[in-house]
Amino acid sequence: MNIVEEVLAGSKRALARAITAVENEYDEAVEIMQKLYPHTGKAHVIGITGPPGAGKSTLTDKLAKEYRRQGKTIGIIAVDPTSPFSGGAILGDRIRMNELTLDEGVFIRSMGTRGSLGGLSRKTADAVKILDAAGKDVIFIETVGVGQSEVDVVKAADTTMVVLVPGLGDDIQAIKAGILEIADIFAINKADRDGVDRLNTEIEMMLDLNQSQVDWRPLVKRTVASKGDGISELIAAIDEHFQHLKQSGQLAVRRTERTKNELLALLDEQIGRYVLKHITTGGNFDSLVVSIERREQDPYTVVTDLLHQVLR
Amino acid sequence: MNIVEEVLAGSKRALARAITAVENEYDEAVEIMQKLYPHTGKAHVIGITGPPGAGKSTLTDKLAKEYRRQGKTIGIIAVDPTSPFSGGAILGDRIRMNELTLDEGVFIRSMGTRGSLGGLSRKTADAVKILDAAGKDVIFIETVGVGQSEVDVVKAADTTMVVLVPGLGDDIQAIKAGILEIADIFAINKADRDGVDRLNTEIEMMLDLNQSQVDWRPLVKRTVASKGDGISELIAAIDEHFQHLKQSGQLAVRRTERTKNELLALLDEQIGRYVLKHITTGGNFDSLVVSIERREQDPYTVVTDLLHQVLR
Repeated sequence: MNIVEEVLAGSKRALARAITAVENEYDEAVEIMQKLYPHTGKAHVIGITGPPGAGKSTLTDKLAKEYRRQGKTIGIIAVDPTSPFSGGAILGDRIRMNELTLDEGVFIRSMGTRGSLGGLSRKTADAVKILDAAGKDVIFIETVGVGQSEVDVVKAADTTMVVLVPGLGDDIQAIKAGILEIADIFAINKADRDGVDRLNTEIEMMLDLNQSQVDWRPLVKRTVASKGDGISELIAAIDEHFQHLKQSGQLAVRRTERTKNELLALLDEQIGRYVLKHITTGGNFDSLVVSIERREQDPYTVVTDLLHQVLR
Repeated sequence: MNIVEEVLAGSKRALARAITAVENEYDEAVEIMQKLYPHTGKAHVIGITGPPGAGKSTLTDKLAKEYRRQGKTIGIIAVDPTSPFSGGAILGDRIRMNELTLDEGVFIRSMGTRGSLGGLSRKTADAVKILDAAGKDVIFIETVGVGQSEVDVVKAADTTMVVLVPGLGDDIQAIKAGILEIADIFAINKADRDGVDRLNTEIEMMLDLNQSQVDWRPLVKRTVASKGDGISELIAAIDEHFQHLKQSGQLAVRRTERTKNELLALLDEQIGRYVLKHITTGGNFDSLVVSIERREQDPYTVVTDLLHQVLR
């Protein structure tokens, strides 16, 4: 299959086509992924999440440029789970109409939700694998917000960075508890704003209270991405975390966990598809729906019966 | 089972316990739902969604009070899919520490994500059924935002209201395309603010462009919920929509569609649980994960093999 060879050679066009195949669930997608899979596992995958307006895109671009200066090749996947319909996925691309897109060593792609959210995190993970197989050294997964779907998407990352800004108020307080559990690094962006010391102190206090991080205490770094301030220090923190993952054996542990979760998600998806096909083509489905609507049967009992039909 | 009888009698304590059983997936939850199901299908279910800060809670409370004046009993489920971890689900309750909670004819409950988002919309639908079986005449499902998960949650409603406010800017523009597809009624809240005419015109223009709404053109109403302005007009619009649904036969069509979707979601969930148990207790799973990690096998082929083991 030519597209696989082209992806492995790093062709931007082939990369775009392969990700589109995954995104739209084209028939060829599975075969592409089967053939690319043996070439994966080399990239450092960095997840970037945080509330809207935190400057995640600008920060990602600056990090990407710095890594490029170091000679590394880059993939960026901008994921927008808040746009259920068309349009949202364009945003990331529009912002990125800058010199990065002209750089042969950088591939940028945005992904939105078409279908289920669970599907989005699975497709994002596949897009990461495609870029990984293509030889990208560093792959960023950037999300638009801090909800459950963003957390799911970022689970494909080795290193997760949470971007916060001073002065966003109580909303940030509310999400901190959740964010604490996924952050390896905190970036306080727009750090020239009022309230930066307070936010920094709050994060450190949270980290003091959290007993679970025995082997890695998340680093807190300040940046002003628009001016490029603090970028090299942030890169140093990212690299320090990756070194820690490798030396402590945590990288292998995390990746095993991820392999398990991805396998189960894929299985779940395939089974769902099989069962849907089996049940809706059986002809029995519509009459079951009617009897449920008439309250002659309840859906919970019907599902138990259907399971016996489908499963061994 | 005593709790079922107590729910049917409308006991607030039993309602709370039944919803907790569903939320936490207690063993008794399925039996409760099986026994309550025949008593469902009578309530008018109203979904309320819109961006944060639109005043959805205040609006819901005012609508609830107006329906109470008409002698109807009320259920309110406040859903927060943006709080993946603990805490978020408290918000709705805190705000509602007012006279509504003292009213025996009103039951208020907030639900957050514990587990998957798909699970949340299924659990919300079950909570609606519990309140429906308990004889609540009107049930509100209120969400915190406008993402895919909110859209999924609101799918359990007969009538969907989208709440917007003047002057929220471009972010609202971005979500309009998606919202258009689910809205039966637009409430422009905080209608005493600047920009209300512009927003109203924009919505009407959108509706003019949309060709799909042949049998029902969404109504646009202005409210100032904090002052109680426009509430009775909004109720009239809601009732008009419900009458339309009944007279046009669309209510039956929508509910059949919902029954189908809920059945498939329940099936998907149960199968996922069965397969997970089968595979992880088989002992084979860990060695498969190892061979995938070593790139000896790829996850896509492994999943196909596993499917053959599990499915008939």
